[in-house]
Amino acid sequence: MALKARALYDFNSENPGEISVKENEIVSLYSEQDIEGWLEGSNSQGERGLFPASYVEILKNDTASTLNNNSTSGSRYANIPTGGSGDASSSSSYKIQNQTDNLSKTSVTSPGFTALSPSAPAQQQHHHHHIYQASQGSDEDWDDDWDDSSTVADEPGVVGGNYQGDFDGNGPSTYRVSTSMSKGRNVQQAKSSSTVSRNLNRFSTFVKSGGEAFVLGEAAGFVKDGDKICVVTGQYGPEWQENPYPFACTIDDPTKQTKFKGMKSYIAYKLTPTHTQTQVNRRYKHFDWLYARLVEKFPVISVPHIPEKQATGRFEEDFISKRRKGLIWWMNHMTSHPVLSKCDVFQHFLTCNSTDEKSWKQGKRKAEKDEMVGANFFLTISTPSGPPLDLVQVESKIDGFKAFTKKMDDSVVQVNATTNEFARKQITGFKKEYQKVGQAFKVLGQAFELDEQAYSVGLNQAIAHTGEAYDAIGDYFAEQPRQDVDPLMDLLQLYQGHLANYPDIIHVQKGALTKVKESQKHVEEGKMDAPQADGVNERCNIISFATLAEIQHFHQVRVRDFKAQMQHYLTEQIGFFQKITGKLEEALQKYDNA
Amino acid sequence: MALKARALYDFNSENPGEISVKENEIVSLYSEQDIEGWLEGSNSQGERGLFPASYVEILKNDTASTLNNNSTSGSRYANIPTGGSGDASSSSSYKIQNQTDNLSKTSVTSPGFTALSPSAPAQQQHHHHHIYQASQGSDEDWDDDWDDSSTVADEPGVVGGNYQGDFDGNGPSTYRVSTSMSKGRNVQQAKSSSTVSRNLNRFSTFVKSGGEAFVLGEAAGFVKDGDKICVVTGQYGPEWQENPYPFACTIDDPTKQTKFKGMKSYIAYKLTPTHTQTQVNRRYKHFDWLYARLVEKFPVISVPHIPEKQATGRFEEDFISKRRKGLIWWMNHMTSHPVLSKCDVFQHFLTCNSTDEKSWKQGKRKAEKDEMVGANFFLTISTPSGPPLDLVQVESKIDGFKAFTKKMDDSVVQVNATTNEFARKQITGFKKEYQKVGQAFKVLGQAFELDEQAYSVGLNQAIAHTGEAYDAIGDYFAEQPRQDVDPLMDLLQLYQGHLANYPDIIHVQKGALTKVKESQKHVEEGKMDAPQADGVNERCNIISFATLAEIQHFHQVRVRDFKAQMQHYLTEQIGFFQKITGKLEEALQKYDNA
Repeated sequence: MALKARALYDFNSENPGEISVKENEIVSLYSEQDIEGWLEGSNSQGERGLFPASYVEILKNDTASTLNNNSTSGSRYANIPTGGSGDASSSSSYKIQNQTDNLSKTSVTSPGFTALSPSAPAQQQHHHHHIYQASQGSDEDWDDDWDDSSTVADEPGVVGGNYQGDFDGNGPSTYRVSTSMSKGRNVQQAKSSSTVSRNLNRFSTFVKSGGEAFVLGEAAGFVKDGDKICVVTGQYGPEWQENPYPFACTIDDPTKQTKFKGMKSYIAYKLTPTHTQTQVNRRYKHFDWLYARLVEKFPVISVPHIPEKQATGRFEEDFISKRRKGLIWWMNHMTSHPVLSKCDVFQHFLTCNSTDEKSWKQGKRKAEKDEMVGANFFLTISTPSGPPLDLVQVESKIDGFKAFTKKMDDSVVQVNATTNEFARKQITGFKKEYQKVGQAFKVLGQAFELDEQAYSVGLNQAIAHTGEAYDAIGDYFAEQPRQDVDPLMDLLQLYQGHLANYPDIIHVQKGALTKVKESQKHVEEGKMDAPQADGVNERCNIISFATLAEIQHFHQVRVRDFKAQMQHYLTEQIGFFQKITGKLEEALQKYDNA
Repeated sequence: MALKARALYDFNSENPGEISVKENEIVSLYSEQDIEGWLEGSNSQGERGLFPASYVEILKNDTASTLNNNSTSGSRYANIPTGGSGDASSSSSYKIQNQTDNLSKTSVTSPGFTALSPSAPAQQQHHHHHIYQASQGSDEDWDDDWDDSSTVADEPGVVGGNYQGDFDGNGPSTYRVSTSMSKGRNVQQAKSSSTVSRNLNRFSTFVKSGGEAFVLGEAAGFVKDGDKICVVTGQYGPEWQENPYPFACTIDDPTKQTKFKGMKSYIAYKLTPTHTQTQVNRRYKHFDWLYARLVEKFPVISVPHIPEKQATGRFEEDFISKRRKGLIWWMNHMTSHPVLSKCDVFQHFLTCNSTDEKSWKQGKRKAEKDEMVGANFFLTISTPSGPPLDLVQVESKIDGFKAFTKKMDDSVVQVNATTNEFARKQITGFKKEYQKVGQAFKVLGQAFELDEQAYSVGLNQAIAHTGEAYDAIGDYFAEQPRQDVDPLMDLLQLYQGHLANYPDIIHVQKGALTKVKESQKHVEEGKMDAPQADGVNERCNIISFATLAEIQHFHQVRVRDFKAQMQHYLTEQIGFFQKITGKLEEALQKYDNA
């Protein structure tokens, strides 16, 4: 009776709520229905929790399907996840479906948070569900209009013909950027013969980000001086060295433009960086492309998410205005970041003349061929001189930050839901109540007008005016959320993006720490020599410095952003209530001569 | 199939929405179910509308009941409304029920307004449904505790043994105060031999108020100088002569008192009139008794209704506070009224030493034996010298006022319902929304507190404070209606009482006008001599002067009251929003050093 599934690969639980399963282990399922790519069940050790749906195959009771499952070995499946001869079965099409879901999930949501409350949809509603697809087509593709999802493959859960290409034969793809890394590093990986054991979970972020390869000493590349990224020791511990040439960038006048004689339309935003004072036009697809490059390049830096894609209504004024505000927030976080703000691809994006197609394409190709991405990114980091970081302290700091992000995520979800509902109430209920009061006063004034005696006229006019005042106040309530709630929610959305990034970042650092512990054990067991272990140590130290610097940066911009936003919110609210007071004072004065 | 009823008496429609029926006329009913004592149907002329349920007997199809109805003639029924041999049938017990309902209805509601929308319960909800019973028991009864309904007979719709006494053999009783008038005037009526025809509708307010008797010249009594009530011609037409010694009266410190060694408890209010500066204690039953005297005495004066009786919770603080406010409004209208404020029974009430039982009872008996009530009240009115009022103009003014009260009643109902709902929303929804926002900010602050870095502390405290500010604002919203909506609703309730009084007042004046027209016709036909018609004219003129003076007074206090109340409402609202603004400014300042 009980629903069973067989693990196709090892999965090591990384967050509370998840359980580990070993290849070929039989697990009991509570339901065949996955929750955003995760299934709930219990493993052979009796632990209950979540594991990725794509890591298991559900064992059907009917013979055909069982046979089919038997003929599909886990290892073969790992290598050839789609398109195999037995894949027409319902079991494997379910898997493909889930792989897709999982890709979507891992792209931008934080599995750790989700896993803690897999059955609480309210907490999950806020997560973005669109895919920031790795944009690496030909230059011909580039000319297509893909400001927003231009192919069905952009949609989560849709398995299209052009989708398989992303797998590159590497088994279920569960991370953000697969294609570029699979080109270089997976080849390296195959050649590696390190004595420190590889992560059995071949789909872990640690592996995919290049963190593992770097720690194992497999990353290699020529670091130019200009690529150097410095972590320094500041007042509060490791931090990124400040950008010596800080700048900002305005985003103005989104305008609709057309090409191909009006066949294609898109919105162009005018960007003016302060350090060049030269305006460039950029489309959403440029932001999207840049975002993909940054995510690929920086494994432990939280790249702010760009505003969500939207299929319909993208030429509507409200949408354009909202997207512009989202892009301004994004830009603000980009230019505030000591590492992101300086990087070549961002500078190319900000400064390349929009009309110079040739130089744009040159820069684009250069960025796409950048060697210093993923594992090699860590090569560019230089740490402060002095002793390495204390591992116990680092672990404690990271754990503290993990708890912080969890709690902040919960509270952001609550503030978001509450202010959203608050806005909705103001636009509907509050407005209606005040206008109903206004209407009632107006009706009273109209009734009083039937008495035409001179001493009554002033009162009648005053009451009519009071009615209008409450009518206006109703409108004030409806208009207010745009002034205060909306900007707050924009900020919250940006931070939800950051909070969704951090589990992966933390995971990379944790993976490095694990490798250090493993290497120490191996040295004790005589399986590894001390210099090799020192190398692991050193490289882990670099990852720790970078991670702590990034956390420090996060806290600093968080305090700055939330302080500013709370001040803005309160200032707007004060102005709002003063406006109401003013309207009522005006209404009251009308009674002076009544 | 159609439901039929037989008219037991003539009923002349007096208001829009009502239809006239003649004795023995068969009417079609739309429903057997009465609406506050009124049935809807169509008469033999095809007119559709409302008529009193007590004026008809429903014709049942079953033989027993039909026989029963046949044996119960309309006229016998009119004389012996209850306790007859055939009255055990369902048909007659239905009638008795309706008579009771009708008594309750006519006591304090305005049939004219109700008739216009008999099926709109929202419009009727505001009407008081308790009976201001004519309080004329013995002095022993007086000592009973009847601060509120002390016998079941007080409740509308209940037919008790002590209830029949009110009928006095006069047929269905449909007006407020029956016993005292039936003692004197009905005897007079029986002896009358005037040539001007009596009103066929023996239950009309015109008859019951004494208006008809006065116009027909049947009122007689010795008017002392002190009883004289002057109508003068003011800027806007006839008005009551101002009280040369205006005063006010405070109502303070309602306290619970007991007697019979604690067996009986009641609330005593401390009244201090400004013209005596001497405090007297009065109970609700004293107000109730006084109210009954005033209603009985003044046929065309709108006596403000006292706050409603309440059976339970009458020692609860909220109820006492609300009743006190209602009594203050009532007192304010009493002392503002040139006629009511000066009258003996009110002065007795205001000035008689509460501990001097003997002198209280003397004054009480005197008031109850007052000859100058009802028809005789009109004898005390002196009109301005000069020509009589133009009948056409008077009729036009009265019709205008009738339309005014109708529209004002509608709008008061709307303002009442709207502000009541507005208050409810503020106490529940608005409070909840602001406090949810507060809670969300608090949770955000708590999440941020997990980051213990020094630069974060100020922000965390500031956010926590913002959370508290929104919590407080939620409370402000919940507390506010007590400051502004409640007083407004108290005023509206008082005016609903006045508006319920006016149809009767208008009816008395209309009845007098009709008599004038009748007498003119009779003179033309040679049935009446000119001096007799002149007498009718003169007396009608007195009623017109009094009615117009009362209408003028109504408008003046209405303008005064609503102006003051709107100013109070707006001032409170301004203070409310300023308080919110202050709270938010306080919250904003916390970010200065964050």
